[in-house]
Amino acid sequence: MLRSCAVRLRTLRVLRDPPGVARPWRSFSSEEVTLEDQALPKPSWNKDIRFLFDQFMKKCEDGSWERLMSTKEDLISQARLFTRSFEDGMGFEYVMFYNEDEKRMVCLFQGGPYLQGAPGFAHGGSLAAMMDETFSKTAYLAGEGLFTLSLNLRFKNLIPVGSLAVLNVEVEKIEDQKIYISCTAQSRDQQTIYAKSSAVFLQLQLEEDSSL
Amino acid sequence: MLRSCAVRLRTLRVLRDPPGVARPWRSFSSEEVTLEDQALPKPSWNKDIRFLFDQFMKKCEDGSWERLMSTKEDLISQARLFTRSFEDGMGFEYVMFYNEDEKRMVCLFQGGPYLQGAPGFAHGGSLAAMMDETFSKTAYLAGEGLFTLSLNLRFKNLIPVGSLAVLNVEVEKIEDQKIYISCTAQSRDQQTIYAKSSAVFLQLQLEEDSSL
Repeated sequence: MLRSCAVRLRTLRVLRDPPGVARPWRSFSSEEVTLEDQALPKPSWNKDIRFLFDQFMKKCEDGSWERLMSTKEDLISQARLFTRSFEDGMGFEYVMFYNEDEKRMVCLFQGGPYLQGAPGFAHGGSLAAMMDETFSKTAYLAGEGLFTLSLNLRFKNLIPVGSLAVLNVEVEKIEDQKIYISCTAQSRDQQTIYAKSSAVFLQLQLEEDSSL
Repeated sequence: MLRSCAVRLRTLRVLRDPPGVARPWRSFSSEEVTLEDQALPKPSWNKDIRFLFDQFMKKCEDGSWERLMSTKEDLISQARLFTRSFEDGMGFEYVMFYNEDEKRMVCLFQGGPYLQGAPGFAHGGSLAAMMDETFSKTAYLAGEGLFTLSLNLRFKNLIPVGSLAVLNVEVEKIEDQKIYISCTAQSRDQQTIYAKSSAVFLQLQLEEDSSL
């Protein structure tokens, strides 16, 4: 099944670029179909996510960090990326910034009212999903990791609906075709840790790669 | 923060019933506000989830199993439960059946096209969310567990969008105010294991309980 999935990814041209240049969500922007970038400020963003967005955009100016584009649609079907499938402001609002030299990712995540678990707070599963999505982008950029093998979360505090969680992601090591990644999710002032997590991704080598 | 959440849950009357009778989502059906049960067959359900739904409904006839009602809305705000926040057939379609004697839960889960991760397959985060939701219902029914302390997943195979995953959940033990739960997610024919997971929930004792 991993192979059939990889073949479908190939169809979407996400595996054609050499390492270090490949950006699966970036390649969409050069497609004939115009897809709207969702990782930009919207009226629904609160002041915390706007403030940090501006700060990271400044860090992007010297090229050490880069903002990752993010679209909703799958080019083949009418399916949507899970974490982009809600109306503006109701579900997952987020933007990711990547530092290639340090193999670090920061995801600014504002969970909307449709992500609720306990009344007034984001569902633990929504944070798990946001972490998995952030991990998957990090794993691909840091070492062409494609598939999540494991995902472990320890929840510390609940995230109020509508407030910002900052996900700080680091690559711990790459070994035996596996990428080990960790994450801490905390409030903007760093006084509240929401959760800590780790994941292992598999690097997939395709036999057909040599033919490209 | 756990306490403030518990107080809000109390407001929703989910903590008032004695153990073994309490059904947080059930209590909604007796509210003055009419909320629609979402855990019933819909046109968007495929034949696999319909077939197993009918089988479990037969098991419910002698009282050993029970189907859990499930609504979208929060009574206080216009927020929605994360796993019920999509249009019919586009996101999480599921129904849970609980066996009180065995402390076992079965969740029939059909992931729609808005849960996509890799093209054609459900996002790992959507399965994590569905497992967390199933765990949380199990923990509450089995031992008034309210808060997820940890969630660990090992992914084995990808779930095609639109196909059924059967989540078999068991309570391993209850010890030191913690509830240990495990889950295997597999295809209807049990030939494909999608993922295995475990979680630990905290039992929350409220000081105010004695006043009820």
